[in-house]
Amino acid sequence: MVDVNCSLADPQLRRRAVDAAMGRAEFDVLLCNGLVADVATGELREADVGLVGPLIASTHPRGQRQDAYKVFDLEGAVIAPGLIDSHMHIESSMVTPRVYAQTVVPQGTTTICWDPHEIGNVSGLEGVRWAIEATRGLPLRILVEAPSCVPSAPGLERSGAIFDVAAMEEMLSWPEVVGVAEVMDMRGVVNGSPRMSGIVNAGCASGKLVCGHARNLAGKDLQAFMTAGVESDHELTSKTDIIEKLRSGMTLELRVSHENILPEAVAAFEELGCVPQTVTLCTDDIFPDDLLRRGGMVHHLRCLVALGMKPLDVLRCATLNAAMRLERRDLGLVAAGRRADLVIFDNLQDFTPLEVFTSGTHSASRGALLAELPPELPGLPLHTVRRSPVTAADFEVRAPDRQRVQVRTVHTPRATRWGQREMDVQNGHMVLPSDTALMAVFNRYGEEGPPGLGVLEGWGDWSATIGTTILHDSHNLAIFGRNPEEMALVANTLIASGGGMAVARGGKIVAHVPLPVCGLLSPESPEVVSEQFAAVRRAAAAAATWDGPTSMIKLVTGASLACNPGPHVTDLGIADGGTGEVFTDMIIESV
Amino acid sequence: MVDVNCSLADPQLRRRAVDAAMGRAEFDVLLCNGLVADVATGELREADVGLVGPLIASTHPRGQRQDAYKVFDLEGAVIAPGLIDSHMHIESSMVTPRVYAQTVVPQGTTTICWDPHEIGNVSGLEGVRWAIEATRGLPLRILVEAPSCVPSAPGLERSGAIFDVAAMEEMLSWPEVVGVAEVMDMRGVVNGSPRMSGIVNAGCASGKLVCGHARNLAGKDLQAFMTAGVESDHELTSKTDIIEKLRSGMTLELRVSHENILPEAVAAFEELGCVPQTVTLCTDDIFPDDLLRRGGMVHHLRCLVALGMKPLDVLRCATLNAAMRLERRDLGLVAAGRRADLVIFDNLQDFTPLEVFTSGTHSASRGALLAELPPELPGLPLHTVRRSPVTAADFEVRAPDRQRVQVRTVHTPRATRWGQREMDVQNGHMVLPSDTALMAVFNRYGEEGPPGLGVLEGWGDWSATIGTTILHDSHNLAIFGRNPEEMALVANTLIASGGGMAVARGGKIVAHVPLPVCGLLSPESPEVVSEQFAAVRRAAAAAATWDGPTSMIKLVTGASLACNPGPHVTDLGIADGGTGEVFTDMIIESV
Repeated sequence: MVDVNCSLADPQLRRRAVDAAMGRAEFDVLLCNGLVADVATGELREADVGLVGPLIASTHPRGQRQDAYKVFDLEGAVIAPGLIDSHMHIESSMVTPRVYAQTVVPQGTTTICWDPHEIGNVSGLEGVRWAIEATRGLPLRILVEAPSCVPSAPGLERSGAIFDVAAMEEMLSWPEVVGVAEVMDMRGVVNGSPRMSGIVNAGCASGKLVCGHARNLAGKDLQAFMTAGVESDHELTSKTDIIEKLRSGMTLELRVSHENILPEAVAAFEELGCVPQTVTLCTDDIFPDDLLRRGGMVHHLRCLVALGMKPLDVLRCATLNAAMRLERRDLGLVAAGRRADLVIFDNLQDFTPLEVFTSGTHSASRGALLAELPPELPGLPLHTVRRSPVTAADFEVRAPDRQRVQVRTVHTPRATRWGQREMDVQNGHMVLPSDTALMAVFNRYGEEGPPGLGVLEGWGDWSATIGTTILHDSHNLAIFGRNPEEMALVANTLIASGGGMAVARGGKIVAHVPLPVCGLLSPESPEVVSEQFAAVRRAAAAAATWDGPTSMIKLVTGASLACNPGPHVTDLGIADGGTGEVFTDMIIESV
Repeated sequence: MVDVNCSLADPQLRRRAVDAAMGRAEFDVLLCNGLVADVATGELREADVGLVGPLIASTHPRGQRQDAYKVFDLEGAVIAPGLIDSHMHIESSMVTPRVYAQTVVPQGTTTICWDPHEIGNVSGLEGVRWAIEATRGLPLRILVEAPSCVPSAPGLERSGAIFDVAAMEEMLSWPEVVGVAEVMDMRGVVNGSPRMSGIVNAGCASGKLVCGHARNLAGKDLQAFMTAGVESDHELTSKTDIIEKLRSGMTLELRVSHENILPEAVAAFEELGCVPQTVTLCTDDIFPDDLLRRGGMVHHLRCLVALGMKPLDVLRCATLNAAMRLERRDLGLVAAGRRADLVIFDNLQDFTPLEVFTSGTHSASRGALLAELPPELPGLPLHTVRRSPVTAADFEVRAPDRQRVQVRTVHTPRATRWGQREMDVQNGHMVLPSDTALMAVFNRYGEEGPPGLGVLEGWGDWSATIGTTILHDSHNLAIFGRNPEEMALVANTLIASGGGMAVARGGKIVAHVPLPVCGLLSPESPEVVSEQFAAVRRAAAAAATWDGPTSMIKLVTGASLACNPGPHVTDLGIADGGTGEVFTDMIIESV
């Protein structure tokens, strides 16, 4: 098994490496005829690299040495530092850390900063502890961040856990935790809420990183957010936003999950005339099929180079800049004395990863993992959907008979706004207009009461039912549709599978990705998860006539984000993060 | 008193700063109408800066805010991060840390990394402990490094202390110590000597910095030095050397004490097309009069800009690059949430420091210190020259009578080589040829035996006597001259003053800087020390007809550097660092 965190302060290892560098002993591995991507000097230059154990022991002129236990002739390929993903959620890829490592190590990612925010919301400290345990023995260095906003909208929804300041302090005391994960409750911070101030202060006091989520923060709000102690952001929205945040001194975690922002970033760097050393790259949220098909960090490199950035600048952001941000002097450079986390790319346009070394171990070759994976950790957090089966009646909105009713609706997906609509009533139940759907959110943490209900407008016409237990950020069970029987079928399918996503049409389940681990992850192989998820994604896209820029699957999983302003259906009713109100009844009055 | 290390993890401080940033409260200090030197984006741009306590609370558009306890109208001056000196020895400036702070804070230096190497050699762990204590309460942030090579030439000389691996581990366990100071015994490292391997490993194991001294290291030696765990270097000798070390992945501490190297560095950056983020700036060794007259780091900035570097690149090296190297996320940028270490310069050509803030305290203005200095620490390490008075006879070389003798000599200053010379004998004593001088080194750590003696050739004709207890690296008492009576006078003067430097001519002391603290430092004001030292420097320059590029004062203080190859006179005799031999008798044979 690879120990990617093995200590480099090993006298015998260092002695062996010094002997090899001096030519008194052979290298373990010698990479010949390659070009080193030197992210310190910005050069791509000829050099051979010798490894000893987990160490880079030497970079030296081509052909100077031939003596090594194993020699790789790279035939002009590029030796780059292993890629560092400065902020991400494994949960977004719906696989376990083990399967995630299996997928991204062959892509050249050797270190990730994981915010197990979703697992924390579902399973609390126990979940985060499991997350840390699940990283052990993997050929990927997983640095864990402590989720800072569990729940993200207290009072507006119920999640599986509440992290108070004490919980934060506990997580920050764990050696595997490198800092406070994205502080999302921006209002709480700039308005000095005791909870958020306490959480940010716990981060400052720990000496560890304090990472941010500064969506649309500008001017005095941004300054206040930073002076509170928050250091970074990945919620970039425009060139202007990027330039303001760089000028503010923030560390950026530029994310590939929102590709539309990358041209803005490149334009910002062009305007500034440099790529600041405060820029790192991250994936944030990548769906399983995208991760498998396009890749994570490697896709990021390709995108930025295609947009005209210098490959060495891009690599610097993905390696040395991140290593310096993370205060990891052992990472980020192809240099003697550093850890041998390396990826060999065919060239700096295609970025096809040929070989990967993690802490000196040849961990992947030509897209296939070579490193032995530990068995999946026993005691996966299963059975987290604690909810009895539901019935069609749960999806009927009772209303005063023989009348029409005035109903408050959730208008437009994503940036939602309040709407009003008059609806018919039949047999004591409200009749949904044909251009609307019902969204029902069931608490799945042991509260058996009725679901929170809301009517969605502006998504087009619905012809199918979608259900999901991935429902940011509390991950209750949400069902979207018009047919009560079909909605109950989807809900009960997901309850039975311990969570997941499913789509039904014509009274039958047409796509289903079971996610029994925390109701978020699958224990299956990346190929299986990808295929199941891709089927759900396609079926979901066909469920309504919506043709906006955001995919249906992102809309449904984000429809309960009550930390945002505007109406969002949660297990408590229709909540508005802008006003802090929750409406348990959608009916305003009988007409 | 300023507490430059005050914690920023103070909930009340952060709350107050957030309130000020949001406009709910006034700033403590508001810097208006300035230009911020933004070393992240490389811009010089209009912005106002608000401070609260030790924090930068806000950077915001000019004129947006007026509310502050104290407002400074900067009239277009430049707001830069406080300068960080990445490697230096206070001892070279011959003043106490208190006086050093008094001198450099008004120049805009707010953080220094101090290797108390000389104090360690004289006074051991107790000296280093004193050094740390002497930094407390100063308006300058002094990060202490643990001297790694005490003594630097074991077996070839006797110093006041021996630091073994255990001593190193002890120092590294102290919170004030940020790492292992320049590892000078390069051969020991690359040849795997147990002592040096142990010391470097102790550094690696501590997780703290491991700094280097890699003079003339190249090729496999450089690679071996780095793979042993050494990360940085300041011993740069040429453009080629600089480029090789940058490519090796070393962090450079480019030093202004060797100005001749700066054009080489600028040429290296031009050739690379960038100034890597692995470049920091340092002063290393600055004489007291130079420090007062030209300045330390501020002189560095002026030199590099005069050589054509972009001012923002120069400042970035002196601030953000150093802060990132030091893993100090609170330093190096004018950015909300960071520590308010700031220097206001008139412009980026002259770099005249107008105002200085250290941890938010207005610590200097127009060249004068404002911050209150703590009293000099009681218990200064005085009386470290433990040597009885000497006599003229100590400077007579006894030789077999009525013969001529063949003598091994120390030829050429600095890069010394072995010479041979036939000399006359009169009255049982060797007669020095007129173009030579005697160098006598007395142990000053309680060993009362005869001095180590050697004859110096190639310095020109001598007309005076020089004495010093600053004698790298063991700092014994060295006397250079031809007249035994005058040499005894100088020696006894220095013994009486507890150390220092002195020059005698015509049988009288003509210049004397008493350095009673460890025999290295003066407790006097910077002006007094400068004046005394300048007189010694002038008198020393006139002592011989030497007209090489290196000043006489550097030659004499370096004449005992037995860690270097070639002959060097130490308290044990004439030692050769290249062969490890020590000759106690300079006379080879009677002729």
